Amino acid sequence: MPELIVVGGGPAGLTAAFYAVRRRLEVLLVSPDRGGKTRFQLALPGFEEHRVIRGGELVSRFARELEYLGYPLRSGSVERVSADGDRFRVLLAGTAGTAGEELTARAVILATGCRSRRLGVPGEAELFQNGLYGSAASYAHLFLDKSVLVAGDGPRARSAAVELAAAGAKVRLLQWGERLTALRGAAGAVEAVLTSPAGGESVLRVDGVFNELEPLPASGPVAGLAELDGSGYVRVDARCRSSRPGLFAAGDVTDVHREQVLVAVGEGAKAFLSAAEYLEGR
Amino acid sequence: MPELIVVGGGPAGLTAAFYAVRRRLEVLLVSPDRGGKTRFQLALPGFEEHRVIRGGELVSRFARELEYLGYPLRSGSVERVSADGDRFRVLLAGTAGTAGEELTARAVILATGCRSRRLGVPGEAELFQNGLYGSAASYAHLFLDKSVLVAGDGPRARSAAVELAAAGAKVRLLQWGERLTALRGAAGAVEAVLTSPAGGESVLRVDGVFNELEPLPASGPVAGLAELDGSGYVRVDARCRSSRPGLFAAGDVTDVHREQVLVAVGEGAKAFLSAAEYLEGR
Repeated sequence: MPELIVVGGGPAGLTAAFYAVRRRLEVLLVSPDRGGKTRFQLALPGFEEHRVIRGGELVSRFARELEYLGYPLRSGSVERVSADGDRFRVLLAGTAGTAGEELTARAVILATGCRSRRLGVPGEAELFQNGLYGSAASYAHLFLDKSVLVAGDGPRARSAAVELAAAGAKVRLLQWGERLTALRGAAGAVEAVLTSPAGGESVLRVDGVFNELEPLPASGPVAGLAELDGSGYVRVDARCRSSRPGLFAAGDVTDVHREQVLVAVGEGAKAFLSAAEYLEGR
Repeated sequence: MPELIVVGGGPAGLTAAFYAVRRRLEVLLVSPDRGGKTRFQLALPGFEEHRVIRGGELVSRFARELEYLGYPLRSGSVERVSADGDRFRVLLAGTAGTAGEELTARAVILATGCRSRRLGVPGEAELFQNGLYGSAASYAHLFLDKSVLVAGDGPRARSAAVELAAAGAKVRLLQWGERLTALRGAAGAVEAVLTSPAGGESVLRVDGVFNELEPLPASGPVAGLAELDGSGYVRVDARCRSSRPGLFAAGDVTDVHREQVLVAVGEGAKAFLSAAEYLEGR
């Protein structure tokens, strides 16, 4: 039985696993993939990229180092985490009608992230990262004097609009009842087809479109086990401890609400250090 | 008047300033130096270094990038931060009997770190980072099957001892009443002179010595302004917000208590994002 199971292979989960392996803690990382959102590369022609640290580069270094160190990785999705006395049961999703395997550990770090919601319009896949972006926090600085459309109607969309405007972009939000129904073109010359409440179509030309629909946190496996906030994010304290002792959470699945690779890396390190403290204290 | 003043030029402060400059926020970084604890390099002959990310390298990349972007830096120490209506006053330390300058901003990020306490014994300076180390969390993995002495008697020393032992080191703690009175030699062959309560001297030979005295958080400038914990660390929530709206804290000055460069970088990014949210909401 591993002492610690890390669920999720994005920046937070990889960092936590890396620390654990380096500390010689028995750890198992369970994830259907590795790299999380950093697997997507930015392609924005004509812009000089001044980012000091490329999230994807950082995380792939972690992943390579973990492979070098020979850490145990289980490929799979976690369906449910439950408490059983002083340990946790981690149920993997089954395949083809078979029941999933159940693992146990003394501590669990949930780093399953959040899933972006799709706009669900033609052209979405083609323009992704080439005219259509998912994070104003990461890319706003590239849109000085450029025109952008922000799609979404929640707090995330409003915050993205403010941020893009502060970065010098000309920001257009969807009007009441207006819907985005198609995307064409590419970065720098995107055509967004807008449909009015009455059904009339118009075409808006912008340099970029931001999908700022509220994301869905992948906290399902711990629902009922740890406290979630109103939007389903795992509540954590400043040390990544959830309301359930022994269960920690890091990255975009938490109510920290900061979708940034560098933040996720720091949170993963913290979650590990808190888990180690918990395991040492028992 | 800058919108944001970042106090402290270590990993957390530099990261916060970098984000602020990239977001085109008017920011001023005030610090007597840059790089914080990462200015110290590890010199441990005979060990292969498997650290994926070198904190010093990361932070110097931030510092270079900030210089490239032409960010405003004020060299100096901050004596006091005080609230004045909807803004903060930041008083710099004066020099040679003159009063210090006073700056104002709408939000402040405190990233002043914590200061290690010296052992105060002969040989301390000579062996620093060459037989004498200050962070079991960072270096424990290099001491498999090596012998170490842990100096200190608080929770930090106990936690370091557990961590070093878990990493496979042979750990010696100071006995009751025993004092470390001198250090000689170098990494791999350190001679620690121990003095017993009765005054007798003995020499202990170890591969390394860890200074694990409790550090002193540099929270003095905000004492009385924001809530501190019993040891003087600034209490923050999971988003680096202190108890005083508009005042944020990141890194080793906070009660997060995780002295790791990657954690400090993540916390600095978070503190900035929270400060930006605060400034946008006003």
